This record gives sequence, structure tokens and C-alpha cells, in this order.
Amino acid sequence: MGMVVLKFGGTSVATADLIRMAAQKAIKAKIDGNRVVIVVSAMGKTTDKLLALSGEITDKPQRRELDMLLTTGEQVTISLMAMAIKAAGHEAISLTGGQIGLITDAAHTKARIKEIKTDRIDQEHKDGKIVIVAGFQGVDIEGEITTLGRGASDTTALALAAVLKADHCTIYTDVDGIYTADPRMVPHAKKLNSISYDEMLEMASMGAGIMHNRAIEFAKKYNVEILVRSSVTEAEGTWITKEVEQMESILVSGVALRKDLAQFVLYGLPNKPGIVASIFSAISEQNIIVDDIIQNNDGEGLAACSFTAEHADLAECKLVIAQLAKEHNIDKIICKDPISKVSVVGVGMRSHSGVANTMFNALAAAKVNINSITTSEIRISCIIDPNDGDLALKVVHKAFDL
Amino acid sequence: MGMVVLKFGGTSVATADLIRMAAQKAIKAKIDGNRVVIVVSAMGKTTDKLLALSGEITDKPQRRELDMLLTTGEQVTISLMAMAIKAAGHEAISLTGGQIGLITDAAHTKARIKEIKTDRIDQEHKDGKIVIVAGFQGVDIEGEITTLGRGASDTTALALAAVLKADHCTIYTDVDGIYTADPRMVPHAKKLNSISYDEMLEMASMGAGIMHNRAIEFAKKYNVEILVRSSVTEAEGTWITKEVEQMESILVSGVALRKDLAQFVLYGLPNKPGIVASIFSAISEQNIIVDDIIQNNDGEGLAACSFTAEHADLAECKLVIAQLAKEHNIDKIICKDPISKVSVVGVGMRSHSGVANTMFNALAAAKVNINSITTSEIRISCIIDPNDGDLALKVVHKAFDL
Repeated sequence: MGMVVLKFGGTSVATADLIRMAAQKAIKAKIDGNRVVIVVSAMGKTTDKLLALSGEITDKPQRRELDMLLTTGEQVTISLMAMAIKAAGHEAISLTGGQIGLITDAAHTKARIKEIKTDRIDQEHKDGKIVIVAGFQGVDIEGEITTLGRGASDTTALALAAVLKADHCTIYTDVDGIYTADPRMVPHAKKLNSISYDEMLEMASMGAGIMHNRAIEFAKKYNVEILVRSSVTEAEGTWITKEVEQMESILVSGVALRKDLAQFVLYGLPNKPGIVASIFSAISEQNIIVDDIIQNNDGEGLAACSFTAEHADLAECKLVIAQLAKEHNIDKIICKDPISKVSVVGVGMRSHSGVANTMFNALAAAKVNINSITTSEIRISCIIDPNDGDLALKVVHKAFDL
Repeated sequence: MGMVVLKFGGTSVATADLIRMAAQKAIKAKIDGNRVVIVVSAMGKTTDKLLALSGEITDKPQRRELDMLLTTGEQVTISLMAMAIKAAGHEAISLTGGQIGLITDAAHTKARIKEIKTDRIDQEHKDGKIVIVAGFQGVDIEGEITTLGRGASDTTALALAAVLKADHCTIYTDVDGIYTADPRMVPHAKKLNSISYDEMLEMASMGAGIMHNRAIEFAKKYNVEILVRSSVTEAEGTWITKEVEQMESILVSGVALRKDLAQFVLYGLPNKPGIVASIFSAISEQNIIVDDIIQNNDGEGLAACSFTAEHADLAECKLVIAQLAKEHNIDKIICKDPISKVSVVGVGMRSHSGVANTMFNALAAAKVNINSITTSEIRISCIIDPNDGDLALKVVHKAFDL
């Protein structure tokens, strides 16, 4: 008997009709001979509405109370999903994070999973039930309600798929797969049949917005195959799997654009050990997520360090940087906001040269100036003027014949 | 150091402003030297909205899943209340029914409290915190989420007041106390300073609508004094306490009118043991709450039995009665819908005669025909034509000089 985990995001359970549609997919999986676990997010914009409520009370909510508040969203969905499956004539039971025994540390609003017990789920499966689990939430060892961070229902689903040794985990969402570029911006973008974990990690961090990195890391670590597909169409979707040989024959799997970034450049840093560490630990203490970091030495003992961060964190970032500037006598700081970042991703890069060249030439031909460049083993990113973003995405996509 | 339980109903926490106002009352109680427990309901119409959601999915939700769904309402309120108190500079913590250790039986949607642990609340009080508890909810010994029935946040509050040996329990609501009659219908109605548990029990069952009977029964059993007062004004409110001697000098404490009733009359019942029992067990199996029951013998071996039930249960009632009529060969059944019921309540009746007389005369003088009569030790009720309801309430109120 197979075991599958199906995860439905907020847009896929936003209304009673959509919940019924999701229930049907789970029932089909059960009839096909699987034990089924469903992981759900809060319905539609519920989490935002709850955050707005808390914002009406205070702009400094305690993290513990935020978790108490936000976990209600998923709890609503699981109960309705159980009702929908039962109404369609099948057995189902809803379980909160605490009830399945998803134990986390005590770091409210960004807790880490420590352990997932499987006895309750196993028992319900033995009783022939479809098990519906509230994503995003857990409890610490004291029974305090915790959350795994925004968007972490994917993490719940992948973690469950790992501990239950599921055949695969299907992520139902509002797109029908992973494309070579965002199809809203590049009409010729093609859907991929498969993509490797590493490529998807780079795509996700570039704002492809389909899955959270943490969930993909989980899947990679435990080798859980993921299928990303639409909750409303029957289109085939994209598999996220470990790297297979044929992937290397494809030079570039996708091109992505981020527009929500700001860039800080700190000039004249004394080039001595510990400086950069002190900067980025100060930033990370404020829970600001830093995107790429670039550092160059000016050859005279001073360094220029630049980093990109999300535009949403700009105000907090500026405060931290101003403080750091005082401490370290940094006299020149530039903040560019917004900037755009265009990236190409592909495991094929490892064994093929010329990818950077193709990308830079395509941008040059379109008269797009490159502000700075960063690379990883399977990614090349160029930071460019925000006005050039859409054009850059299109010309790079075309250059790689995607 | 004192100990007080403050309960805020849905209308008293319907908005962020009202939650802040409620928080201030709790803070004042703390500053006055009390350990404070707050029990809250779901905000405004939240429970109705959640029920509507479930209604969009199915008209036969599983009771367990309904509990999973509805308990989110109170969980939202407790977290926001904790944030509001913290924002006002005081320490607070929100706790679900499960977290305080409110253990119930497994009867979902109408669970009974089996035990309330106090160690968690005691600990939080020792840490100087105001403790905010989600009303209406608990868990069974398996950790399944249960609810105590609609409106049962009052029950949670009184039960907590009992186990914590609180000095009293304040029920904050949208009226400023208990009146001799509904002030919307009898403008001259006067607010009572105090009323006995028994009188309040009769008033509540007559639809005074301020508190649930079960909560008052709890208070009576454990002798917890209740103060009913407004959450938005400083008006003094009404104490619900055990009977004290001075209460007996007042003939009648209040007059009440119910308009939401239907009456069934079953004629020609064979007057033998077990018939009535079988009728009312069939009705109660459908969770139909029967109001008053009247039975008379016709002197020839046949009985006429009538009962009143809420108009909302009419359709289900008719089905049950039709089935019973078949089984017991009852050939004549009359259903009057709607009917009204006017009642006078007062512990003074026990030691004074003439109350019935005064009531019947007042109705007669106003040409209100009495369809049937029931009495308890401290109540007299007359079932009348619905068109006479308002008039009957006014003339009876006046007759007792309230």
C-alpha cells in the first residue's frame, strides 16, 4: 500500500468549492490504494487578516501570542476539509500540529522541528481514515503552540513525507508547475518536467515564489520526491527530484527575476578579521534575511562590501547599518532601492562553460548595464537597474533557447 | 490577595477597541490587588460565521470537526487580549482549554466538565500574569478538542471561579444588569441590585438571554457570587447570589416573555405507564430542548399532553411527533406556532399567596386569554396568544408594581 502526502496552499483551499475539489483529489489518491495525509494552509488571505487584527491591537505583538493567533487559520481549514471528505462518503480526521506530535523548539514564529511522532497518524490510517494535518504549526515540549515561520506548510508536508517514508509529496498550488521563467512575464516560458533540488533551491531563493527553501532542503536531505501541480487543472506538473544525469545535458533550467530587493554598499571597511561577521550578525539578529553578499578588496587594505535584502526590510536594515557605521567608522554607505536581479539556474553549468558569457552578451546586446554579479555553482545572478528587469528576463530567456 | 474571574461575551470583545476596553478592566482588577483570570468568547459574530462556513461544506458536520472549527474563535480572542494587556504595560498569557487542563468527557459539541487543573493558572499568577482563558472549550482525556455547548463560556468562567475559589465572577455583557422585565419592551422596568440563583435560573430559562442555566447551576452548586454588568459603562450591575432573607419580602423579582415557542398538544394518549417517557426520550434523542410539559387526564383513561419547544426546532419536532403518533395511535395532534409565554418569578412566592391571583386578574382585565398554565415553586407561566405577548408583559409588570 502506498503512502502519499498532499499539500494544499491557501489559494487552493480559499473557498468551500475549492476545499471540496481538494477533498476529491485526496479521495482519488485513497481509492488508488494509498494511505493519504493532507497538509493544509489557512484559507486564502486568512493569515493576513489575522495579522491585520493583531496590528489593530499592537505593533509589537508577543511572538507566543502571534503563534496562538495565527495557528487558528490552519485549524479552520483542517476541520472543513474533514467535513468535506466525510460529506463525500469517506472517513477523515483532522489533527492539529500538537495532536500529531509535531514537536518543535520554543522559538515562537520561527520554530524548528525537533521530532514528529507517527503513531497517531499510523493509527488513523489503520482505521481507514484520510488524515488531515494543520500545516505551519507544532508544539514545544511544554505544550506551547509554535509556528514554523510564514509559508512553512510546505515544510510540514515534506517533513511528514520524510518521517512517514511517503512515496512522494504533491504540492498543490495555483500554478501548474515550474517554468523556465515566470510565464506572466515571459509568455514563451516552458513548463519543466523535472528539476533538481539544487536548481529549485536557487529558483526559490530567487523569488520563484512556489515553494519555500526550507521545505526543499528538507526534501533534499530525506530524498522525498516532490510533485508541484495545479489544484484546479489536471495538468501534469513538475517533479522536484535528486539530480539525474540527463539534467546535466540541459545547460540552464530556468531564468528568474527578483524586483523586491534593495542593495546596500558599504565602502572603506577595514579589511580585518571579524568585521564582516559583526555586520551580518547584527543584521541577522533583527531577523533580516540577506540575499546575496559581495565583497571586493580595493588592494589598499580597505574592502567594499555590498549585500541585497528584501525591500520590506529596508527601514530596519537602514537602522542597523547606521548603527554599524558609527561603530566601525564606515563613512560611505550607498543604498540602492529598488534594484532588480536576473538569474540563470542550471546544474548543467557545472559541466559546461560559456553560460556566463551567453548571459552577459545577451544583456549587453539589449544595452542592460550590469551593476554587480554573483555566482554559485549552479547559478549566475546580475544586479541591474529595475527599469531593465523585464527586458533582461526576456533576452536572457531567449539567449538560452528555453 | 483576592482572586477574580472576569468573563467577556462576544459583543464585549467584538472589536480591537472593545478588547482594549476589556483589557483595562482586567488591569484595574489586578492593580486593585487581585489575581485575575479573564474568560473570553469568540469576537462578535465569529461563531456564526464559522458555522456558516461549515454549512457551505455540509449540512451534517461531524461533531468532532465542529469542535475543531469553533474553538478557533475563542483562541483568536485570547491571543488578542494578551497582546492588548501587554501593549498597556502589563504581563498576560493566553491559554486554550487544553492548556489550562479543562478536561471534559468525549461528548463533542456538548461536553461536560470532568476536571479543571489549576497548577498552570497558579503558576502564571505567581509569575504576576493576568491569565486569559478561552471559554467554551476543553479537551477529553485523549487530547481531543471538545466544546461545552453554545454560550458555554459562562460555564467556563463559573467553573474556574469555583475551582480557583474566586471571590466572585463578573460577567461583562451588553446589558448593565438584570431587570424586572426586558427594558426594550417595558420601559419602566427597574434594574435589580440582586437576584437569587433560583430566580435567575427561572429567568434564564424564560429567555432573559443574559446567562446560560448551566452556568448559574454551577454557581449555585459552588456558591460563587456572580456580578452581571456592562462592559462599556460603569453602571453597578446585578449580583446573582444565594437566597438571602430580604429577597423573600419581595413578592416577584421579575416578569419575562418568550415569543420563540411552539406548542404541541397530543390528545387521546392511553393513560398507561411509559407512554410519556417514550415520547420525551424520542424528542430528546433529537436534541430538541423541551420547555414546559403539561399533562391532564380526561377522567376516562385517556390523557392530553402538551409541551412547548423552541420555534427553531419546529420542523424536527413535527417529524418526531408524526412518528410517535403512528406508533401509539395518537389521532389528534395540534401544533400552535408561535405562542407566547408570560411568566412571573420570585422566591417571595413561596411564603406569600395571591401571586397567581394577581397575575390572572391583570391578564383578565386586559382581556388576554390564558391558553394554559404551568407553575414551579417560584414561577407562574401562562401560555397566551402571540398577539397578546407585549400587552401581557406590561400589565403583569404593572400589577406587581415593579
